[in-house]
This record gives sequence, structure tokens and C-alpha cells, in this order.
Amino acid sequence: MCEANAYLRQDGKEEIFMEMVDKVIPEADGLVLEDIFGRRKQIKAKIAELALVDHRIILERGQA
Amino acid sequence: MCEANAYLRQDGKEEIFMEMVDKVIPEADGLVLEDIFGRRKQIKAKIAELALVDHRIILERGQA
Repeated sequence: MCEANAYLRQDGKEEIFMEMVDKVIPEADGLVLEDIFGRRKQIKAKIAELALVDHRIILERGQA
Repeated sequence: MCEANAYLRQDGKEEIFMEMVDKVIPEADGLVLEDIFGRRKQIKAKIAELALVDHRIILERGQA
């Protein structure tokens, strides 16, 4: 499987926000992340960076 | 490997922009995409959507 972990970057630090993310879908005021089990989490953030071979999605606060 | 293909969405259509993308890095006026071989392409676009299990990155024109 090619899911990735989503990290929230804040003040130069990264903390895990959600594991095994499949989909990232833009919404009116942020993003919806869906993991490989179909569980969803919402966050007011945008995608800042991807490193897929390392299974990393970096999110940052603020609208997409 | 968990690379993905990057598609540019324009006028409701999606066309392939780059295959086997590993990294997507934000720059001043767009994105730099790097494939698993280290080849780079630049585009004035933002990340619109991800579907990692399907190996899809959707880009849209406009600044990140």
C-alpha cells in the first residue's frame, strides 16, 4: 500500500496528524484527510510538501 | 515504490504532467516536482488533491 503519514508543521516542528492517509481532498476552509480504512479527519490547513517515497505529507495551518 | 503520477487539472480535464513523482516542494511561485530518478520539473501550480493508493497527485494552475 502506498499510503503516507500526514504531519502538521508548526513553529518549525512537525507532529503527526494522521497515519495511513490515502486521500487528501480540498474543502471550503481546509482539507479532509481520509485514511486507508475510510476514516476521515478535517483540518484547516494546506498541503505544504510531499515526500512520497518517505511516506510523508506535510501540512501547514492556513487555508488551501 | 510509492511514487505517484502528477496530473494537471484544467477545464475539468486532467493531463499527465509528470510520472513517478517522489517529492513535491513548494517554491516562491509554484512547485518543484522531483521524480524517483531525481529529475525535476517546475510548474506554477498548487496541489489540489491527493489519492495515494491510486498513485495520483492532482495539480491546479495558480500559486500555492
